Amino acid sequence: MRRVVAMLMIMAASAPRCAAFSSSFLSYERRGSQAFKMLSRQSTRSFSVSMSGTSQGRASAAVAQSKEKSTGKKEKLDLKPPKGTRDFYPEDMRMRNWLFGHWKDVARLHGFEEYDAPVLESEELYIRKAGEEVTQQLYNFEDKGERRVSLRPEMTPSLARMVMARGKSLTLPVKWFSIPQCWRYERMTRGRRREHYQWNMDIWGVPGIEAEAELLSAIVTFFKRVGITSQDVGIKVNSRAVLSEVLTAMGVPADKFAATCVLVDKLEKVKLDDIRGEMQELGLTDEIITKLVATLSIKDLDALEQTLGNGSKALAQLKQLMEYAEAYGFRDWLIFDASVVRGLAYYTGVVFEGFDRKGELRAICGGGRYDELLATFGGEPLPAVGFGFGDAVIAELLKDRNLLPNFDNNKVDVVVFPLSPSVYASAAAVSGVVRSKSISSDLVLEDKKMKWAFKHAERLGASHLVIIGEDEIAKGIVQVKNLAKGEQVEVEVSKVSDFIAEQLASS
Amino acid sequence: MRRVVAMLMIMAASAPRCAAFSSSFLSYERRGSQAFKMLSRQSTRSFSVSMSGTSQGRASAAVAQSKEKSTGKKEKLDLKPPKGTRDFYPEDMRMRNWLFGHWKDVARLHGFEEYDAPVLESEELYIRKAGEEVTQQLYNFEDKGERRVSLRPEMTPSLARMVMARGKSLTLPVKWFSIPQCWRYERMTRGRRREHYQWNMDIWGVPGIEAEAELLSAIVTFFKRVGITSQDVGIKVNSRAVLSEVLTAMGVPADKFAATCVLVDKLEKVKLDDIRGEMQELGLTDEIITKLVATLSIKDLDALEQTLGNGSKALAQLKQLMEYAEAYGFRDWLIFDASVVRGLAYYTGVVFEGFDRKGELRAICGGGRYDELLATFGGEPLPAVGFGFGDAVIAELLKDRNLLPNFDNNKVDVVVFPLSPSVYASAAAVSGVVRSKSISSDLVLEDKKMKWAFKHAERLGASHLVIIGEDEIAKGIVQVKNLAKGEQVEVEVSKVSDFIAEQLASS
Repeated sequence: MRRVVAMLMIMAASAPRCAAFSSSFLSYERRGSQAFKMLSRQSTRSFSVSMSGTSQGRASAAVAQSKEKSTGKKEKLDLKPPKGTRDFYPEDMRMRNWLFGHWKDVARLHGFEEYDAPVLESEELYIRKAGEEVTQQLYNFEDKGERRVSLRPEMTPSLARMVMARGKSLTLPVKWFSIPQCWRYERMTRGRRREHYQWNMDIWGVPGIEAEAELLSAIVTFFKRVGITSQDVGIKVNSRAVLSEVLTAMGVPADKFAATCVLVDKLEKVKLDDIRGEMQELGLTDEIITKLVATLSIKDLDALEQTLGNGSKALAQLKQLMEYAEAYGFRDWLIFDASVVRGLAYYTGVVFEGFDRKGELRAICGGGRYDELLATFGGEPLPAVGFGFGDAVIAELLKDRNLLPNFDNNKVDVVVFPLSPSVYASAAAVSGVVRSKSISSDLVLEDKKMKWAFKHAERLGASHLVIIGEDEIAKGIVQVKNLAKGEQVEVEVSKVSDFIAEQLASS
Repeated sequence: MRRVVAMLMIMAASAPRCAAFSSSFLSYERRGSQAFKMLSRQSTRSFSVSMSGTSQGRASAAVAQSKEKSTGKKEKLDLKPPKGTRDFYPEDMRMRNWLFGHWKDVARLHGFEEYDAPVLESEELYIRKAGEEVTQQLYNFEDKGERRVSLRPEMTPSLARMVMARGKSLTLPVKWFSIPQCWRYERMTRGRRREHYQWNMDIWGVPGIEAEAELLSAIVTFFKRVGITSQDVGIKVNSRAVLSEVLTAMGVPADKFAATCVLVDKLEKVKLDDIRGEMQELGLTDEIITKLVATLSIKDLDALEQTLGNGSKALAQLKQLMEYAEAYGFRDWLIFDASVVRGLAYYTGVVFEGFDRKGELRAICGGGRYDELLATFGGEPLPAVGFGFGDAVIAELLKDRNLLPNFDNNKVDVVVFPLSPSVYASAAAVSGVVRSKSISSDLVLEDKKMKWAFKHAERLGASHLVIIGEDEIAKGIVQVKNLAKGEQVEVEVSKVSDFIAEQLASS
């Protein structure tokens, strides 16, 4: 897993075939500045969008119209994908499949089942009043039936809808995962992506901290599989119950809590004085604000105990979580940090956030407990906890650490090459037989030279080249060249698939 | 592959857990009438959408608003996905992954590479003047930046854009596949789906009929893998070059050809007299129309030779295709039918369409050659051929023929069950170790009874239940129950993962 193909990564940077791979997944501007990191930190669960170079997204709003000119020839189409979106060429797709494959494997190892929901949802699913960025940046519009709809900015509301729809018939606990594409629309920013894919894992029906521990286990298991260590990445952990206990003790009403958390989250990117007015509008006095800010600065559980007292439920849960992390073997990944509250209104308990220890990247993943979300949709509350893990920052981190495999080549087992059009039908038949043994076979569809066929086989990373000419057909054989060993042997047509299957099995 | 779980399918029809599976994938109204079959036949490449029951899509346009009532309690959210769309619960997702898995395997066996493009594209990509249904039913809108965009109705234009963007740097031939979700918007129809997933395979850069033969090989390979035979399904084959030769001989200008084909395709659902006026507007005389209709009725290649003469290139290609099909071993799947022209404007050569031989379902898949598409985008023409294969009709066919596996249960290897909260940390540690051997492990997160744990393990299809109590921890062991054999043994904690791995390997 940790095998690094550093040489090939360096080559990839200059190879034209790899241009799109670099631009769509990896060529985000590196930003070490705290200011930038803060900009999008709070919204990882909702949208951990990466900066992308302008090379892929459209830089200009002008859309070339394909109107016929007076010459009768069409104007050339704008060849870029829509602003802020990506094409996935095969080399990009190999990277995506590799990443998604790890996510899916880890989720399944933890006993989670995959689900999906429409990328387009009713807008009402996302309308919340707490002033979150996620609701301000909806990619929403009115459809032709005058319904307000939106491309989903996050998966949790769809999941909540699905869980609620099943109601009592759902066997608890629910452990589900998905890798949805999520969207947002920002008017002003340049070159920022408007879509990303986001690994989601959620547990419904478990009130205890065991659910949080299990989700953190999945996240750490993923990091370890791809070669990332606890020296590279940490996970900040907190509980909104900490703030809730402090605010409740100072008489702040419960219905101000979500909006307070959304404001507190903004302290990552703005100064306290910039939002003091908004805090006062929520009814927070200067005394409360001072206490709040003091609480946020706490970085260890002993200090937290001094603030909350040893009867605090929030403290007990966090201590228990750390004990479980020790048992699972990932205690070294966790850091208590009372300033982490996350930017989504619906979190109620433990929240967490993966970050790179060098401090160069935005949040890698984030999540938390949201026991009251169904209630806000008019249902009975049901304990729930989940996380979102975007595809952009992790790609950047993996590239930084040289942990990406080589995605340059398609992997095909065999190239089948007819020496002339007269034997094409026989070559097709051989390809069919080879494929019936689950051996992938690229059949050369045109009349090509031998030299081309060898180069082609090399480009596809094929292990064998099957050469078919008129002489061979007359004798009922084909030539099979083992490209790694350089050996070429004659094999009876009826035995070619078994022959190659054996060679592949033994290599 | 052909193993049918008929009993379980019958059970599934009544089990509540399977309701969504049935409704989202399979519970389309069965329509034997030719009239209905014709309705959507022409658009399979663009959108082989199925009829869905109204149980899943929203039947009413009214969207329940989640406004707070005077009681302070929220009105309940509308729990259905948006009209015409589907949720994928885990049992639906298992079906989808099974189907997509076959599609991906078949594409890879043929040496094809996966790609993807944004679901949202610039509307101009789909604006064509030939009067196709696909452009009339765009799910398009204006975004906040006043750009005209559309959810993609089909994948080919995105692919063309991507191929064109790479230009000369692309190594030909290109053999790419994708399984995009495609969208359409119809105002009037009830209960018809607005999205489907569509397997696409395309070959660029190969002018010869070898490319068509290779794509048909992929389609037939898929059918065979899932147990469908040439008695169940046939593939009608024709070439637009047949019509082109006839029309050119009668003096019809080339620029009327695409629109003529789109009109001819409508003859599947309307009478000739209903479109005679439109044909006349295109400049087709009654003499030409009569000749056209006579040509469309031809059902064998000998008769075609009498119409086109033995110098016809279209005829020679179709004959060659049939010979290749013989060599591949799927000649029995193909039927020449001059009335098949497909509904997309851009096809120029061979076209084909998979159909069920009982005549009960709409087209299963469809495709053809489109050598001029890049030219319509202002680029240099590049030979291309491809097909689209939707997820709806095939699901219906597989259900009809009892060819679907049982998707009821998640498959987990092991359930790890702590007998009390006091041993939870140990259970978490055991789960972690088991997972590190790539054995999937569902950890019981709550304090449950033994009876519940057994039922839970059964529901998950687990092969082993690992039971951990205080006595066991004191002795450094766990209880491992092999659920198939009913045997329970004590295993040292340090050996549990190896023990289960061995049992799984030998079962």
